[in-house]
Amino acid sequence: MSSLPIRPGLEGQTPYGAPELDVPARLNVNENPYAPSPAVVADIADAVARAASGLNRYPDRDFPALRQALADYLGVESGARLGRDQIWAANGSNEVMLHLLQAFGGPGRACLSLTPTYSMYPEYARDTLTEYVTIPRRDDFTIDVDATAAAIAERRPAVLITASPNNPTGTALPPAAARALLEASRGNGPTAADGAPTDCVVVIDEAYAEFRRPGVPSALELLEGNPHLAVSRTMSKAFGAAGLRLGYLAASRELVDMLRVVRLPYHLSAITQAAALAALAHREELMGQVASLREERDSLVAWLRSQGLTAHESDANFVLFGPFADRHRVWQDLLDDGVLIRVVGPEGFLRASVGTPEEMTAFRAALTKALSGARAVGPDPQEPA
Amino acid sequence: MSSLPIRPGLEGQTPYGAPELDVPARLNVNENPYAPSPAVVADIADAVARAASGLNRYPDRDFPALRQALADYLGVESGARLGRDQIWAANGSNEVMLHLLQAFGGPGRACLSLTPTYSMYPEYARDTLTEYVTIPRRDDFTIDVDATAAAIAERRPAVLITASPNNPTGTALPPAAARALLEASRGNGPTAADGAPTDCVVVIDEAYAEFRRPGVPSALELLEGNPHLAVSRTMSKAFGAAGLRLGYLAASRELVDMLRVVRLPYHLSAITQAAALAALAHREELMGQVASLREERDSLVAWLRSQGLTAHESDANFVLFGPFADRHRVWQDLLDDGVLIRVVGPEGFLRASVGTPEEMTAFRAALTKALSGARAVGPDPQEPA
Repeated sequence: MSSLPIRPGLEGQTPYGAPELDVPARLNVNENPYAPSPAVVADIADAVARAASGLNRYPDRDFPALRQALADYLGVESGARLGRDQIWAANGSNEVMLHLLQAFGGPGRACLSLTPTYSMYPEYARDTLTEYVTIPRRDDFTIDVDATAAAIAERRPAVLITASPNNPTGTALPPAAARALLEASRGNGPTAADGAPTDCVVVIDEAYAEFRRPGVPSALELLEGNPHLAVSRTMSKAFGAAGLRLGYLAASRELVDMLRVVRLPYHLSAITQAAALAALAHREELMGQVASLREERDSLVAWLRSQGLTAHESDANFVLFGPFADRHRVWQDLLDDGVLIRVVGPEGFLRASVGTPEEMTAFRAALTKALSGARAVGPDPQEPA
Repeated sequence: MSSLPIRPGLEGQTPYGAPELDVPARLNVNENPYAPSPAVVADIADAVARAASGLNRYPDRDFPALRQALADYLGVESGARLGRDQIWAANGSNEVMLHLLQAFGGPGRACLSLTPTYSMYPEYARDTLTEYVTIPRRDDFTIDVDATAAAIAERRPAVLITASPNNPTGTALPPAAARALLEASRGNGPTAADGAPTDCVVVIDEAYAEFRRPGVPSALELLEGNPHLAVSRTMSKAFGAAGLRLGYLAASRELVDMLRVVRLPYHLSAITQAAALAALAHREELMGQVASLREERDSLVAWLRSQGLTAHESDANFVLFGPFADRHRVWQDLLDDGVLIRVVGPEGFLRASVGTPEEMTAFRAALTKALSGARAVGPDPQEPA
């Protein structure tokens, strides 16, 4: 019988998170399956040792060296020309998104998103007391630009957040659609205290952008002339550094300066700054597996289709597939064979991350076995928390 | 001309933070002046290298090993018997406090504090849209327990936050006063949605507790029987690891479980967990300087008084002293001589951290020189941001 004053809206809620199980093939949280090489590990350890020798001092609050290195990386990866003042970083994209909604969301304001999409977005809204409003995507998971533009004009959200490629569907946002959303957002944010119109901030979450197929551009190209655009990235996925917790974004300097107001001082440790800088110096090696992961993904889509399943086109390192009458039963069958995937997205569908060739062989064998029995029928029980 | 929708309440605000200047004696942010030894640095680097070899995977969301090590440390430091489920940690006490106010604060709720006190408390309230209400301390900076109890009964705050020893005054909270605040808080939190009374959560911020004088107990002793108490600590001060950004608290398991709902998943990186564990294994060495810092502090208080100044009793690693007609002029005079202290607290007073004997010699020389000129008179200009 709690007498603690948990705030309204949080009663009975449980902590967010997928099951953490130690199984041979972990294909549930879209990690990069390739561990860093001994050379990368050694350089990270050296950099951390240098930082630790002054560990009694607070870290640099504004981490200019890391921001410059991230700007340089985006220049190489996407051809974007960015100054370090246009970069922001935090302990994972989670914290970057929190900063965005702390700066621009809040009571009486709305965050618009396009579903199905990443299941953390409503948590960021909840944590900042921002109303979470959704517009459904089309059946093929592309965005209905006209309906979205109409919703922006009607609701005047403070923030529109959309992932490209989208999680859990893998769908990329075409540049024409991104431009249309940016146009629709101009002057359609909340009215400022002085009565002036504001723009809705458009956040394009490119956590998986490095896996996009040839010819698919990054929204980074749209930053120029769109001070209300923020493009977020992470070192957790293609970069193979989920354990580092380093998310970042590129935006106008004006937007970044507003995030600096809400960040907690010294939010990025000296050790995180040093390790991220060391990892970025090895970007070619760390990114070397991206091409093979892309190939493995395309093979996975083809194989799933050859099994009579629907598998959605993906520009990410995961594939959404189904439908299953009892997706939880299939999830459990795979887990029993040492393959952990994710129950997420539209009813009847499952999401599998792209792993090593060995892990994908195990996945195919387990799924073939699961499908060879009677297809599971009946109500879909809850995935265990 | 911004057209970004910065939320009401943040317009025109600037990022929090003291000046970051590279001078010989940095006595402005209460860091431990002693860098970790080569042995500590080597162990941190080894631990980070092990963690980095699996950096492609997400860290453990609930970090049980680190929570156990922190519980063990508190047992040795304060004799508290705590289970790991009673420990919570985050990227600095800043984030721990944010979690507390995200869980228990929010619109229509109040956070009560006892001023003068730590200047980040109003930022945590602002960031969580919690009303920040203050009660003044007595002239000697002790707490007026009756006035505080009356304010709790009248305002029914969700959270009472007070530091012991208090920053910037150095004042410890006597156990009888802590018990009285805990009693006054029972049933005097906000009314729950179902009409039931709740308790006000009492947060005792013991960031500087390891520096307390002999005979001054920790509020950790009061956890038993007070499920509405949270005692926060940090590795940034006595532990000499400000660059690590590891804050934590001890509380009832029930309270900790509510913080788990609002934490962002994977908020503590694998590298932070590994480095903190390695540092905790060296606690005797890292804490070895605490005794000499305490002695240096007591000498500093005596010396300041011998100069005709008021210097407040301190259980922390800093001393508040004054008064000066123009404290900013004194601050600048010291900075010109390579000694950086802090303009903070009551009008006319300055705060200096306790440094190494060499740093304190430089401080005494610089202050003697500043005082030997005509004492500065006139209006007090703003400290540069």
